[in-house]
Amino acid sequence: MEKTENIKLIALGGVGEVGKNMFVIEINTDIFVVDAGLMYPEGEMLGIDMVIPDITYLKENRERVKGVFLTNGHDENIGGIFYLLNNLNVPIYGTKLTLALVGEKIKESRMKQSILVKEIESDTVLAFSSTNVTFFRTNHSIPDSVGISFSTTMGSIVHTGDFKFGQTSDQGRQMDIGKIAKIGDEGVLCLLSDSINAEKAGFTGSESSVGDEISDVVYSSKGRVIVSVFAPNLYRIQQVINAAVNNKRKLAVVGKNMKDILNLAINLGYIDVEEELLISVSEIDKHPINEVVILTTSNQGEPLAVLARMAKQSHKHVNIREDDTVLVAATPIPGQELVFSKTIDLLLRAGANVVFDQKQIHVSGHGHQEELKMMLNLTKPTFFIPIHGEYKMQKAHAKLANHVGIREENVFIVEKGDVIEFKGDNVYTGGKVPAGNILIDGLGIGDVGNIVLRDRRLLSQDGILIVVVTLEKKKKQIISGPEIITRGFVYVRESEELISNATEIVSNIVNRSLQEHTIEWSTLKLNIREALNQYLYEKTKRRPMILPIIMEI
Amino acid sequence: MEKTENIKLIALGGVGEVGKNMFVIEINTDIFVVDAGLMYPEGEMLGIDMVIPDITYLKENRERVKGVFLTNGHDENIGGIFYLLNNLNVPIYGTKLTLALVGEKIKESRMKQSILVKEIESDTVLAFSSTNVTFFRTNHSIPDSVGISFSTTMGSIVHTGDFKFGQTSDQGRQMDIGKIAKIGDEGVLCLLSDSINAEKAGFTGSESSVGDEISDVVYSSKGRVIVSVFAPNLYRIQQVINAAVNNKRKLAVVGKNMKDILNLAINLGYIDVEEELLISVSEIDKHPINEVVILTTSNQGEPLAVLARMAKQSHKHVNIREDDTVLVAATPIPGQELVFSKTIDLLLRAGANVVFDQKQIHVSGHGHQEELKMMLNLTKPTFFIPIHGEYKMQKAHAKLANHVGIREENVFIVEKGDVIEFKGDNVYTGGKVPAGNILIDGLGIGDVGNIVLRDRRLLSQDGILIVVVTLEKKKKQIISGPEIITRGFVYVRESEELISNATEIVSNIVNRSLQEHTIEWSTLKLNIREALNQYLYEKTKRRPMILPIIMEI
Repeated sequence: MEKTENIKLIALGGVGEVGKNMFVIEINTDIFVVDAGLMYPEGEMLGIDMVIPDITYLKENRERVKGVFLTNGHDENIGGIFYLLNNLNVPIYGTKLTLALVGEKIKESRMKQSILVKEIESDTVLAFSSTNVTFFRTNHSIPDSVGISFSTTMGSIVHTGDFKFGQTSDQGRQMDIGKIAKIGDEGVLCLLSDSINAEKAGFTGSESSVGDEISDVVYSSKGRVIVSVFAPNLYRIQQVINAAVNNKRKLAVVGKNMKDILNLAINLGYIDVEEELLISVSEIDKHPINEVVILTTSNQGEPLAVLARMAKQSHKHVNIREDDTVLVAATPIPGQELVFSKTIDLLLRAGANVVFDQKQIHVSGHGHQEELKMMLNLTKPTFFIPIHGEYKMQKAHAKLANHVGIREENVFIVEKGDVIEFKGDNVYTGGKVPAGNILIDGLGIGDVGNIVLRDRRLLSQDGILIVVVTLEKKKKQIISGPEIITRGFVYVRESEELISNATEIVSNIVNRSLQEHTIEWSTLKLNIREALNQYLYEKTKRRPMILPIIMEI
Repeated sequence: MEKTENIKLIALGGVGEVGKNMFVIEINTDIFVVDAGLMYPEGEMLGIDMVIPDITYLKENRERVKGVFLTNGHDENIGGIFYLLNNLNVPIYGTKLTLALVGEKIKESRMKQSILVKEIESDTVLAFSSTNVTFFRTNHSIPDSVGISFSTTMGSIVHTGDFKFGQTSDQGRQMDIGKIAKIGDEGVLCLLSDSINAEKAGFTGSESSVGDEISDVVYSSKGRVIVSVFAPNLYRIQQVINAAVNNKRKLAVVGKNMKDILNLAINLGYIDVEEELLISVSEIDKHPINEVVILTTSNQGEPLAVLARMAKQSHKHVNIREDDTVLVAATPIPGQELVFSKTIDLLLRAGANVVFDQKQIHVSGHGHQEELKMMLNLTKPTFFIPIHGEYKMQKAHAKLANHVGIREENVFIVEKGDVIEFKGDNVYTGGKVPAGNILIDGLGIGDVGNIVLRDRRLLSQDGILIVVVTLEKKKKQIISGPEIITRGFVYVRESEELISNATEIVSNIVNRSLQEHTIEWSTLKLNIREALNQYLYEKTKRRPMILPIIMEI
């Protein structure tokens, strides 16, 4: 391994936000990318389907990028892979399950070019001229998650991925605590560690007690049990399967997404289920209600949408009845709390017994404070960068690092694009590379920018008023219109007077303008807009978008 | 008091939701209205300013309405009063502070007619032919809150208003526990009780320890302390004043809303403050940073908007600096969690030390489970209706009632408009009166309905595409256009080809149609809409609203 002259650490996503994880590790001239995730849109991103990191920096340095290393198969880590691969032809490294889930994404995106995929195991060592890359198993809410260590002659750079120190999650595959300790003993220059639960005291709850609780709920239910889990949470799915088996119930799987994931997991050996346990959706009604468990999925983009349809009696196959028990084994992501709570209400109204946060039927996949401190103590880094989380979570994580003895000046709370550079014995901060959000809307990648979003926001508030007038320019007269059409502004039938007054205002402005020597279309439009804006605000205290259209013959 | 033949209980608001409280109690032929509140709009109510209850039932029975009884001065209880009074000429009963806050609302709404206002105290007895109305003091996050008892020969109907059993909130004015017990001993037919915190175990935290915590935070702050409280929470304001006094700091009040409330509270004697403590906003910089406390307000409609402006350095007077400590003494209401969390991030980024939920600097004004059970045990009602809260909170409250011995069939989880009728020894359920939401948008009350909201929703997702064409009908030819204008759909400069292809599609459809014998405008528009919809979805996977406008000469 060559001598390390220079290391640059740059978060392109996953800092100051939850999701869209992407971290760049540059050693000498080699660039290694950890994760290529997506984020679901936040409240103000109207109409957007998903958000991915801006990879301008990677595109500009494409010949130096050695590969993308995926820490786990969640959308937050792999959801942006299709975009990355459309722009960079680099190998992807990941564990078996992670790569299988990447395969599904690639299928969905109908990508054409061939992709170089390399499966890693926890004992894989990848030798590059600048670094040896090794992996350690972690615990998370999806199997086969890993952390990554990049060794250098200045010490190693350790990226934890998402993790917790659960003792009972992964059917026998335990977290590689010894290996992490060994990496720590050999000298860690900088740790990059998951901050999602840095504000939460203590340890995360135990996965095995979650399994027990789910089994208890199924045992005490008189009717059908419907369980909603986040699809890639295979532990939770296994627990539901076990609960069905223990209580002599059959299991029906609802929803294409859940079926796909389940089949994939069964085929790869991550889920253990007997063929005869499973029944098809059409068979549900052939079994007594107390002999059925129905497994369905929720996803972060549309949390509980399936349950809401079931509650409203508008699901194709399964609708909520009086004796049903619904288990919601998920926590709402920030911004989705109201939708979550409304869905619970719908289910209760439909007569179901709903179990959500009263019982311990779900625990987070991200370690709490004591676990984060344990990771810091095991790796004993000289420098520390809290990643994965909102700014306040990063801040809280920085404080924890101080508590376990890492000096305040050695902790960097970075924003997207900030460069932390190690060179000789010095650390340089203050560098910046391009970074930001790329919005995906339908087939459009990055074509929806601030202008389009601002217009959607305006339209969503008070709607639009369109005024069309056709002019004969030579004769200087209106030959058709003005006609006013509104959408999302007022209820048209009850606003005839308002609209007819507005029409008159426009007529007057246009006629006055036609008498002038030269007619400036842009001035005329501006005048119409201002006059209508003032009149409508006075009458309604609303400000619809006003769009004058002048047709000329 | 005449013999009670018949009692009807109807929630017009405040059930299945948080806010918009309004409950109708009908005894023989008299109608009594408890509260007239508003609700701030939920996520999907785009552009709406506030929501109030539908009072059709009261309007239809206006001659029987004896009065409106207000339980406290929160917007959730008095915010809809202007609308009620615009439609019904009835007296308003309330305590001193509540009526003063109603006065402010009336001023804002520039109402013209005179209003009959009657101040009540906790020992007031109002005699009507059908009932005697008495009041009991409660504890809540605003002073001068009361519960109400309507006595009848069938037993009394008790409405708790919002309450908790705090022991240290109201400077000496304690909750009338003895009086509630006495009402209970005399026989309660039906209890209507606050459900907001029915899912929360134990008791609410102590107000006095909140005061201590705030004082501690101020004591340990090195720079300015900025505190944001919900404006009508006069206890919290008093605690901030005390903390300033204890730590020898001056107090500056920022924001018109906060100043108004503070002046009103000082004038009425609800806030105790020495003149010399207060400094104006312009004087802040004249004092050392460790001798200033800045008090500002957040409100439910725009939570923390002021703090966000301060963090972004765009506030007129106060902007966040490195040494500032910001106390956020409020809990986000459902649906506002993301805004809340984003604001905390902004403050931290601006360098402030932010204290929000790590310390006990805020407690709820609504009793937890043990308090709700205490109310049930004190009043010992035969029947029980959980009010004030989402359906799941009402459900949880119903369970608590069962736990303290109220029979399941005597508990009614009502929806808006449901009628519970007591007649002789019988209870009748199943009746319905009109009830629902009236949306207020600007000056429009109830004119924004489902169609307008649906359009705003559509517009917010993929924007709008307008196509205008001017036709000469006689000559059967296009004389101007088709012209396509979009807003919120695509970035126009990058979509020239898309738009020019769409224009051609429209041209072809119009020209084909012009060759036909008779031209049906509606068919032509439909054809344009369908063709464009298909083309645009294929090319962009987006579905903008498509609006064909045909101008005719």
